[in-house]
Amino acid sequence: MIYQQVVNAINESSNIIITSHVNPDGDNIGASLALCQALLKLGKDAVFVLDDSVPELYKFLPGAEKVQKPDFLQKNSFDLLISMDCGDLERLGRVKDYIQGRKLINIDHHISNTKFGSINLVEENAAATAEIAYKLIKSMGIFIDKDIAQCVYTGIVTDTGQFQYSNTTEETHVIAAELIIAGVSPADIFNKVYQNNPKEKILLMKEALKSLDFHFNDKASCITISRSQLDSISGDELDTEGIVNLARDIASVEVAVFLKEKEPNIVKASLRSKSRVDVCAIAKEFGGGGHIRASGCTIEGTIEQAKEKILSVIQKQI
Amino acid sequence: MIYQQVVNAINESSNIIITSHVNPDGDNIGASLALCQALLKLGKDAVFVLDDSVPELYKFLPGAEKVQKPDFLQKNSFDLLISMDCGDLERLGRVKDYIQGRKLINIDHHISNTKFGSINLVEENAAATAEIAYKLIKSMGIFIDKDIAQCVYTGIVTDTGQFQYSNTTEETHVIAAELIIAGVSPADIFNKVYQNNPKEKILLMKEALKSLDFHFNDKASCITISRSQLDSISGDELDTEGIVNLARDIASVEVAVFLKEKEPNIVKASLRSKSRVDVCAIAKEFGGGGHIRASGCTIEGTIEQAKEKILSVIQKQI
Repeated sequence: MIYQQVVNAINESSNIIITSHVNPDGDNIGASLALCQALLKLGKDAVFVLDDSVPELYKFLPGAEKVQKPDFLQKNSFDLLISMDCGDLERLGRVKDYIQGRKLINIDHHISNTKFGSINLVEENAAATAEIAYKLIKSMGIFIDKDIAQCVYTGIVTDTGQFQYSNTTEETHVIAAELIIAGVSPADIFNKVYQNNPKEKILLMKEALKSLDFHFNDKASCITISRSQLDSISGDELDTEGIVNLARDIASVEVAVFLKEKEPNIVKASLRSKSRVDVCAIAKEFGGGGHIRASGCTIEGTIEQAKEKILSVIQKQI
Repeated sequence: MIYQQVVNAINESSNIIITSHVNPDGDNIGASLALCQALLKLGKDAVFVLDDSVPELYKFLPGAEKVQKPDFLQKNSFDLLISMDCGDLERLGRVKDYIQGRKLINIDHHISNTKFGSINLVEENAAATAEIAYKLIKSMGIFIDKDIAQCVYTGIVTDTGQFQYSNTTEETHVIAAELIIAGVSPADIFNKVYQNNPKEKILLMKEALKSLDFHFNDKASCITISRSQLDSISGDELDTEGIVNLARDIASVEVAVFLKEKEPNIVKASLRSKSRVDVCAIAKEFGGGGHIRASGCTIEGTIEQAKEKILSVIQKQI
C-alpha cells in the first residue's frame, strides 16, 4: 500500500525537505506546514522549502515563519524530498534543480499529476492535498494538535471553496469534524482567510465592475480592467482572482469572462461556465487551457480587440 | 426527553401544520420542508403553511411548490402545529391568528426564543434549525432520502455561511457528511443558492460601491445607496444583504456600515464589526438592535445626515 511505502521512506530518513509549487495557495501551504510539523513531532529534522513567499493571507499559519528559500538546499544535506500538491516538476520552481538522484515522494490530488516521484501518493478524488496529508499523519500515529489541525483545515476550506466545489465528499466533512474536535475554530479561520482583504482588492472590484456588460441575451457577461486602471490602484500586482465569479454568479449567465491587460497589447482572459459550455475548449483556441468550467488564456491586442475575439468564439458555443 | 415528547405529539396527530417565520431564508424553508416530507412519509397529512412566498432562490427545494398561505388554516382542520426556526409568535405573521387553543411545538435554535410552544425543542447551540429537524427525523426512524437531505443541507449551508460562522460545530460537519451519503451534491446546491443571483444584484453592488469610503485610519468603511439609485436599477425591492460584508472584509476595517435610503428621509443602517466594537450598542443609540457583530437601525434624515450621525457614534467606539 502506498501509505505504508511513504511511512517507511519517512522512517528511514532523518533530514526531510518538504516542498511545493510556486504561486502558492491555501492548500499547498496548509498541507506542507501540516506535514512539516507532524514530522518535527516525530523527531525528524524537517524543513519546508519553497521558491516563493508565503502569501500574506497565510502567514498566520503555525510554522509559516520558518519556511526556507531554495538556497537552503545548497547549504544543507537532506535524505528525502516530499513534494506537496504539485502536478509536475516545473511548478517546483528552483527547487527542481536539487532533486536529481534524490528520493522523492510526490503527494498530490491533481488529475494531471505526472507521477514524477520515486513514490507517488496521488489521490485524484481527495478534495485537497491537505486531506491526504491529514490521513498520512494519522496513519503514522502522530497526535493531531491544534497547530496541525489549523493547517489542514485551511487547505481543505480554501481548495473546496468552503465545502462547495464538486470535490467535497463525505470524507471531507468527517475530517473537518475531527479538525474542529482538535481545536480549529471555523469562524477564526474564516476571519483570517476571507475577511482580511487588502483595501486595494475592493477598490479593484469597484473599478472593474464599471465595465460589466452582458451579451447574447445575458447568457454571457464580461468584466475588463486596463493596465492604467490597475496601476492607479496599486503599484504591486493585485489579486484579481474572484472577479470573474462576480460576472458568473448571475442566474442568466452561462459563460463569464474577465479580461486583464497584463501589459500593453497582452490581455489575460479568465473564463468560467456553469453547466453547458466547455470553456477549456474556448481557451485552447487561444493557446490556453484549464478545466471545462474554469480556464484561461492570453490574447494579443488591446482589451477591446481581445474582447471582440473571445466573444465571437463564445457566441458559437452558447 | 424533549425529542420523545415531540415524537409522541406527532404520533398522536393526523393533520399536522408546519409553519415558520415571515421574511423566509434558507434555514426556515429547508427545515420546514424537510420535516414536512418526513411526516408525509410517516403517513401523516402534513402541510407547510407560510405567511410569505418561498423566495425564488429556494423554489428548487422538493415540496416548495406545495406551500400554502394562512387562509388554508381557515378552511382545513388540523390537530397539531409545529413552528420551525421562529423566535417569537409575531414572526409567524397571520398564522398567529390560528394558534389559540392548539397544541403547538416550537422547534428553533435562536437564543432569543420566547418558548411560546406547548412543547419547546429549542437548541441554542444548533447551527441551524435544519440540524434539529434532521436529528428529529432520524430519531423517528424515518429514512433520510435525497429530497429530505437536500432541504436539511440547504438550511445548514445558508445558516452557517458555508460552514464558517461560529455556530458551526463538529456535529454540523458529521451531519453534512451523512447528507452527502444520502445523495446531496454540494456543488449542485452551491450552484442553485449562490450562483443564481438576479442581474440586478450585481448592478446594485456596482452602483453602491461607487460610494465606498473609509474613515478613522481605514478602521471604518461606509457604503450608501439612495432611493433614486435603487429605483433606477429595479422597481422591486432588491436584496441588499451582503453589501455590508464587502465593506467589512478588508483587513484594516473593524466597523462597516451600509446605509440604504428606504424612503425620503428614512435611512436603514446595517452595521458589522469584526472583533472589538459592539455594533449592537451603536444600533441601540438609534433605537435599533441585533448582535455584537451584526446589527441594524433606522435613522431619520438624508443619507448624508444619517452617515454623519452614525460615524460620530462609531468614532467614539473605534
